[in-house]
Amino acid sequence: MPVVTADELRKILVSIYESRGVPADEAAAVADHQVDANLIGHDSHGAIRTVDYVRRLEKGDIVPGAPFVVEQETATTAVINGNWGFGFVQTARAMRLAIDKARTSGVAAVTIRYQSHMGRLGAYAEMAAAQGMIALVTADSGRGPKSVVPFGGAKPRLGTNPICFAVPTGGVPLVLDIATSAVAGGKVMLARNEGVELEPGLLADADGRPTTDPNAYFAGGALMPLGASQAHKGYGLSVIVEVLCGLLTGLGYGVAADARHNDGNFIAVFDVARFRDPQEFRSDIDAFVAYLKETPPAPGHTEVLVPGEIEAKTGAVRRAEGITIDETTWQQLMTLGGG
Amino acid sequence: MPVVTADELRKILVSIYESRGVPADEAAAVADHQVDANLIGHDSHGAIRTVDYVRRLEKGDIVPGAPFVVEQETATTAVINGNWGFGFVQTARAMRLAIDKARTSGVAAVTIRYQSHMGRLGAYAEMAAAQGMIALVTADSGRGPKSVVPFGGAKPRLGTNPICFAVPTGGVPLVLDIATSAVAGGKVMLARNEGVELEPGLLADADGRPTTDPNAYFAGGALMPLGASQAHKGYGLSVIVEVLCGLLTGLGYGVAADARHNDGNFIAVFDVARFRDPQEFRSDIDAFVAYLKETPPAPGHTEVLVPGEIEAKTGAVRRAEGITIDETTWQQLMTLGGG
Repeated sequence: MPVVTADELRKILVSIYESRGVPADEAAAVADHQVDANLIGHDSHGAIRTVDYVRRLEKGDIVPGAPFVVEQETATTAVINGNWGFGFVQTARAMRLAIDKARTSGVAAVTIRYQSHMGRLGAYAEMAAAQGMIALVTADSGRGPKSVVPFGGAKPRLGTNPICFAVPTGGVPLVLDIATSAVAGGKVMLARNEGVELEPGLLADADGRPTTDPNAYFAGGALMPLGASQAHKGYGLSVIVEVLCGLLTGLGYGVAADARHNDGNFIAVFDVARFRDPQEFRSDIDAFVAYLKETPPAPGHTEVLVPGEIEAKTGAVRRAEGITIDETTWQQLMTLGGG
Repeated sequence: MPVVTADELRKILVSIYESRGVPADEAAAVADHQVDANLIGHDSHGAIRTVDYVRRLEKGDIVPGAPFVVEQETATTAVINGNWGFGFVQTARAMRLAIDKARTSGVAAVTIRYQSHMGRLGAYAEMAAAQGMIALVTADSGRGPKSVVPFGGAKPRLGTNPICFAVPTGGVPLVLDIATSAVAGGKVMLARNEGVELEPGLLADADGRPTTDPNAYFAGGALMPLGASQAHKGYGLSVIVEVLCGLLTGLGYGVAADARHNDGNFIAVFDVARFRDPQEFRSDIDAFVAYLKETPPAPGHTEVLVPGEIEAKTGAVRRAEGITIDETTWQQLMTLGGG
């Protein structure tokens, strides 16, 4: 499989987007987001998505250069209409606005609706952590198809509804970026391709029965909420994410037949300096991380990790050794004119 | 087992606390919180705790009438020192302060340290929902004993670190109030007493190995984070709760030998009116709840519930039929002078 450097991949993606009328700054923002996702090992949000984004551009579902409109605003809040721009571009603008407001006011919250895919939530939460702030970011999938059953339900009614927090430290930020579903659709696809069963508690079949068979998911099944026997907890978190991203935004919930891909977002930012001396906070966080990492590992484990650590480690390796692109994605990139 | 009305139980508890020097308003606040917990079926936070609170009062760990000190404050934030008062009293004051700030500023965040047990998080989040606001409340257990292993770890390093959200609706608020551990210690005790195994994914033995045997928990074992095979997610949420409640408060983390029972808290409140017309929001939320409840039930389930629904139903039953108190707790209440 082809191995490319981050710079090479970035150039390929920028060229593909620019040749389709995407302004240079937006093409760079989208490419940066995808390349960063590949670097840290979240390949499902990396180059593999390019063919989808191009299709949406051609269909008019993504509008390059779409205005970022603040529909309602106070010193601490903003309601954003993304006008179907790239989610990567509009969410980053919204996060910068939230950070500016929190710097002045201590706390800020922003909602966004009508934008395309915004990718990995951690990318935005990290922007706040870099400014000494704690961020909460949640996303739903607008009125697109649903894949997650409510706890006790037989049919999907919710998306994977991720929730993310980032916290400043003395070094790499703590970043928790998790779907509230038990598992991501991409992992089920991988298990099917490899012909293996999944652990119990991740999947439901078409009748809502628990299953470990990945084929059952693709035969009208669904993902379970996080928690296995305690999945009422993952379901509850998913409901709250939907409230913040689908309801508080006014975007709506459920599936609309004509739904354009749409990520609804909620962002909250808290300036650490309003609560504690930021340097003391950072050094306490570093000591807390050390305390967690000193935990003796359980049988079958080699070490205890903290949220975001595996991504930072993978990033260091791939920056040095390059990013491996699967053959299908590579052919797509070449066909799209990135060669 | 004795059955009492909410009013009878409240009078018993108030009498016990007042006879130990607790001011009338604080005795009423503590009793109200405990009785409400019993009413909605969270008996582990109800009358059963009275003997513990009396012990802490006698030891001086809880200080009746402790001042509520705002150590640092802006229009949107406050840092509270609870001076070892009742958590029920200090957290309610902090939530009222957060609500007042959010009414003026749209968004507010408050931290609290040095207070005793604050009980059920939902009680405070509901105060914000009643005012048309969305609340996030988290709590840790200060530097008391830890019961939850980090993901991949063999020894407990974290508390059950609960997280709670409340959302206003047209009727009863949506309230999600969950421990980030897979299970509560009280449920493990119940399973041991009944001689039954627990589901996989909830417990670790003294070496950090997964177990379903409740006796292993009491023989030096620990609780697992939420998520079973995906427990890195529950662990990550627990870490964030600890950051907000132990680190952002300056309370600390880990176990201190001389630790006084202490709940660290983080509260964030968002005024819905800054984002959407509150009436439209409430009616959309009601429609969203109906959409979830219309999900066909999975085999083995009779209906899909929404967060807080089971508590509201239990409350209606117990308001009509009374609260059953277990014999041990009843004898304790009588001995403490509540008869």
